[in-house]
Amino acid sequence: MIRIAVDAMGGDVGPSVTVAASIAFLRSHPDASLVLTGQGALLATQPGYAELRGNARYQLVEASEVITMEDSIEIALRRKKNSSMRVAINQVKDGTAQAAVSAGNTGALMAIARYVLKTMDGIDRPAIATQLPNATGGATTVLDLGANVDCTAEHLLQFAVMGSALVSAITANASPSVGLLNIGEEAIKGSETIKKAGDLLRAAAESGDLNFFGNVEGNDIFKGTTDIVVCDGFVGNVVLKASEGLAAMIGGFIKAEFSRNAFTKMAAVLAYPVLAAFKKRVDHRRYNGAALLGLQGLVFKSHGSADAFAFERAINRAYDAVNHQLLDRVKERIAHAAPLLAAQQQTCTSEVATSATARPTQAVATTATLPASTH
Amino acid sequence: MIRIAVDAMGGDVGPSVTVAASIAFLRSHPDASLVLTGQGALLATQPGYAELRGNARYQLVEASEVITMEDSIEIALRRKKNSSMRVAINQVKDGTAQAAVSAGNTGALMAIARYVLKTMDGIDRPAIATQLPNATGGATTVLDLGANVDCTAEHLLQFAVMGSALVSAITANASPSVGLLNIGEEAIKGSETIKKAGDLLRAAAESGDLNFFGNVEGNDIFKGTTDIVVCDGFVGNVVLKASEGLAAMIGGFIKAEFSRNAFTKMAAVLAYPVLAAFKKRVDHRRYNGAALLGLQGLVFKSHGSADAFAFERAINRAYDAVNHQLLDRVKERIAHAAPLLAAQQQTCTSEVATSATARPTQAVATTATLPASTH
Repeated sequence: MIRIAVDAMGGDVGPSVTVAASIAFLRSHPDASLVLTGQGALLATQPGYAELRGNARYQLVEASEVITMEDSIEIALRRKKNSSMRVAINQVKDGTAQAAVSAGNTGALMAIARYVLKTMDGIDRPAIATQLPNATGGATTVLDLGANVDCTAEHLLQFAVMGSALVSAITANASPSVGLLNIGEEAIKGSETIKKAGDLLRAAAESGDLNFFGNVEGNDIFKGTTDIVVCDGFVGNVVLKASEGLAAMIGGFIKAEFSRNAFTKMAAVLAYPVLAAFKKRVDHRRYNGAALLGLQGLVFKSHGSADAFAFERAINRAYDAVNHQLLDRVKERIAHAAPLLAAQQQTCTSEVATSATARPTQAVATTATLPASTH
Repeated sequence: MIRIAVDAMGGDVGPSVTVAASIAFLRSHPDASLVLTGQGALLATQPGYAELRGNARYQLVEASEVITMEDSIEIALRRKKNSSMRVAINQVKDGTAQAAVSAGNTGALMAIARYVLKTMDGIDRPAIATQLPNATGGATTVLDLGANVDCTAEHLLQFAVMGSALVSAITANASPSVGLLNIGEEAIKGSETIKKAGDLLRAAAESGDLNFFGNVEGNDIFKGTTDIVVCDGFVGNVVLKASEGLAAMIGGFIKAEFSRNAFTKMAAVLAYPVLAAFKKRVDHRRYNGAALLGLQGLVFKSHGSADAFAFERAINRAYDAVNHQLLDRVKERIAHAAPLLAAQQQTCTSEVATSATARPTQAVATTATLPASTH
């Protein structure tokens, strides 16, 4: 039986969302069980909790503390050792659960997951991967989305290998195509890091580690030119948020135009089924649930503002990942790419060693620059 | 009389678009004249050219060569010295025209403009600034959009000063607000470059050089949180193209849903006035015409795929810029910020001098990394 740990306290809303989503998830997944971590007394006051408590596939693990969106990484990691988030991840570490899901503070989630679970061999930095809908009717997997703001070419290669493992695990596509996000299709464009990353990705394609398409541009994410788009966390985060902002603006304009007067309101009634179908098509809640990749355990991040429907989607995603042995797939892919990654890591390490400006240790560099929320 | 040079051969379409737009522009601007540069024989075959030729406010300057979208910077700059693009910019250099407009290869345009016109004192690198519609019904000015892929904090400060000059010149807003694009609102987030840029922008706000709002995130561009958003050219280009891709995808979905069956097609007819109003509201053609800032002359870049309506908007933008003394405004702003910029440039230069990894010369670094097209 697949067992998933849910941080019941995380997110902008908290228990009312996580409890409702958990009930719905257990109903639709008879072969799964859930461990909710958090304050039992608070959970008990949520609507429908009696059903959850009465379900043999449900278990509560008490966690007295809650990590807020405002908590620093330091507080989350060092002070709140009995937080619902950490206790959920501990379930994965102990083997009690096969994956953890949280809608809490992204920076804290990444830091705790990294501290508790550790990164996989061959991976310097975990990445956050999510799906964005594209014009083909499918979705483009984009990573990194904010875990790493200063990426080297080697990190981008690691992201590409992990993203390939993710997509090949959860879809029927054994050889998903990878695009390197750039400002022009020609190999000569972009920064030195991007150019070097292009060389590494081409080498990885030659050694059979991934299916490299080449450079892609911003519009290719939504065209669906490639299955995967790789970029540094700064660019990924900005693109994701700009897209959310643009979609919200367009939605607002449509609403405003249909609310303008009696005639347009009548048109809205007549066009309602069409608008509802359109809304469903671009409903970002369906794509909720970003994977934290490169850790020795599965962790999924829900959007902080997720409602019960969206949060259930994030639990579904964790379930699918367990069901398709995502962790083993990532390990296999990394192992296959090990010679290439090792060669690059050596180069990278020696570059750092000889660099005039020494970089801070990896752990500090990463945790200090995490965003407060994904998406 | 305001006189604008138009590269008649540039863009994906070429003379049919530039001639039609020029005719419309001259009709609506009785106090303006146009100089078209290109192959007269080809222009003469365009519909309506007789009207243009018969207009006393029109002049043709022959230019035998055309820079294609595929031409390298090297070819554009060194080989095609009689290109329509270069001849148009020469008109600005000579003082014959007060601004130049081209829909051609962005990289070539920036390189030629920079070579012919030179940058202003105090500006290391020119930037490309455009407007994106926002939820307030207004527009957000974003720069840089692809001229500079590796920006220092000092460059971001220069962009902020130039962007402030642009917005205060073309709108009634004397003190437009500036946001620094980042992955979190807190000053601690982001890369070292972004953090340092934040410090510089705060210092510039204290010295009265600009109105710094603070960090903004991707969604703030479309929310309209600030009048100006400053970012490096890589991020700006990716965001712009991703936004174009998302808008195209959403437009495609709306069309698909309304074309699904007889009922939805009827709904489309009834909703037509609403959909048309919506389409007009998000019509990116209205925002065509990006400013190349920081040069000793005004140059505007039209989207390569612009139609006559969009290209006319770009000429309008150049006209407005001349009318509002944009060049003087930028110079004044730069002069006011000179002490701060000079202090930063000295720091920057000494950092470069002592850096273990010497940077290539500015000109080469910039021209080698320009994208083939803005937007």
